[in-house]
Amino acid sequence: MTGRSRVIEVQKYRANLRESRDDRVAIEEPLEIRLGYAADGKRQTNSVSITMRTPGDDENLATGFLFSEGIIHSHADLAIVKPCDGDNTVRVELEDGVAVDLERLQRHFYTTSSCGVCGKASLDALYAQGVAPLDAGGFVLPPDVLIRIPERLRARQDTFDKTGGLHAAAAFDASGELIVVCEDIGRHNAVDKVIGALLRNDRLPASELGLMVSGRASFELVQKALVAGMPLLAAVSAPSSLAVQLAREFNVGLVGFLRGDTFNVYAGKERIAG
Amino acid sequence: MTGRSRVIEVQKYRANLRESRDDRVAIEEPLEIRLGYAADGKRQTNSVSITMRTPGDDENLATGFLFSEGIIHSHADLAIVKPCDGDNTVRVELEDGVAVDLERLQRHFYTTSSCGVCGKASLDALYAQGVAPLDAGGFVLPPDVLIRIPERLRARQDTFDKTGGLHAAAAFDASGELIVVCEDIGRHNAVDKVIGALLRNDRLPASELGLMVSGRASFELVQKALVAGMPLLAAVSAPSSLAVQLAREFNVGLVGFLRGDTFNVYAGKERIAG
Repeated sequence: MTGRSRVIEVQKYRANLRESRDDRVAIEEPLEIRLGYAADGKRQTNSVSITMRTPGDDENLATGFLFSEGIIHSHADLAIVKPCDGDNTVRVELEDGVAVDLERLQRHFYTTSSCGVCGKASLDALYAQGVAPLDAGGFVLPPDVLIRIPERLRARQDTFDKTGGLHAAAAFDASGELIVVCEDIGRHNAVDKVIGALLRNDRLPASELGLMVSGRASFELVQKALVAGMPLLAAVSAPSSLAVQLAREFNVGLVGFLRGDTFNVYAGKERIAG
Repeated sequence: MTGRSRVIEVQKYRANLRESRDDRVAIEEPLEIRLGYAADGKRQTNSVSITMRTPGDDENLATGFLFSEGIIHSHADLAIVKPCDGDNTVRVELEDGVAVDLERLQRHFYTTSSCGVCGKASLDALYAQGVAPLDAGGFVLPPDVLIRIPERLRARQDTFDKTGGLHAAAAFDASGELIVVCEDIGRHNAVDKVIGALLRNDRLPASELGLMVSGRASFELVQKALVAGMPLLAAVSAPSSLAVQLAREFNVGLVGFLRGDTFNVYAGKERIAG
């Protein structure tokens, strides 16, 4: 289970020519997150997630996942984060005083709504969880800084270069410097790895950092940026309607189609200088 | 809630020029699947899933989701599939005799494994669910038929053309004809919509149809093709290591990087003629 890509034999076709060749594929393996916490005076352990991921930064992935899901709120909640190499498991032990609501994770998938299901309800659910809009001021980025970020990210996508099969996410500062870069077969995992790294470096809420993703910007990715306090999400590809709605209501700058010297601003145009 | 895309105002930047313009974004909205079934002589209803999706083909999405998750096995299990427009809900009523194991859906997310977590365990889990390898013979496709499928798919991606923000999936036959085409903001949803449509047209197991996807080929997408009995999965982008492993062990042909007149065969090369 070492490494992030693996060599396999493939048949390559071009027009009607076929040849047998070695090629690299990105590794996809399940990761189990086991959560230990105190309840009723006793330590308990629960398996809270199995997700398909690309090995690497597993402790950040587990941390970012638990943070994005609202199970933990700060670095101080963590006692131990211990990846078990070769076992595809990360053990996270929380400090004794941290209350855990496992039902919360379940509600993520099983919700009964009495008032209908719609985009507005999804936004209201965030308010209900205590998520507040970001400060509309503060973080501002010049356009010429923004347009250089994709090439910087691309330059650090080591496994993508070998396999063409990974997403990437990065946290960047107002000068365009990449603070953390992570790759994963899953878009959400790549973002969770970045946010987990920020949390473990005591950089959350990251009110002076933007988030860059190699793919599209969906509701869930804006939500992750928002919960991490990041005032800007920039994506190489398109945003969705609900991503735009969420970004506008909660003051997250949202940039899409960031390619070459062009980009679109879908929300928070005041976060782009000039 | 009508339509699959929406016009919003954006700021477009090119070099240092900025202009305000109308642009289209793909709609992302939650869909709730409510499942009705008989248990202990009484009808019950449970909300079994809320997923973010692009509206359209909701009854197929719900059907394909329930099939892929192993909750239903054939068209005959379905009594009613009723989308509630404007409500983002699909109600699925099963026939009286159909036994439902809701724990199964939960296990998908919450598993405690005593023997470690690895790719092999993920494959073994499929055997345990009664999924068997496909017949290695049968479906064969000439290379020149295969390479024409992406442009045919692209020609039918109506909402992608408007927004640049949707995935697509299609079922195709051995002559390269597209039988079903679906778009969605989620790769998995697009595939579930295709499989749901096949099931409701009594075309499962689809031993004479291949599955084409606009993005990458992950473990879960190979799994969906396999459970639907589809002997070939072709992807525009890269497969993962576990997708290759699954495809090889269960006799699913796996094609990646299908672009222009080139492609790679990662598994089941006997499914490509010549």
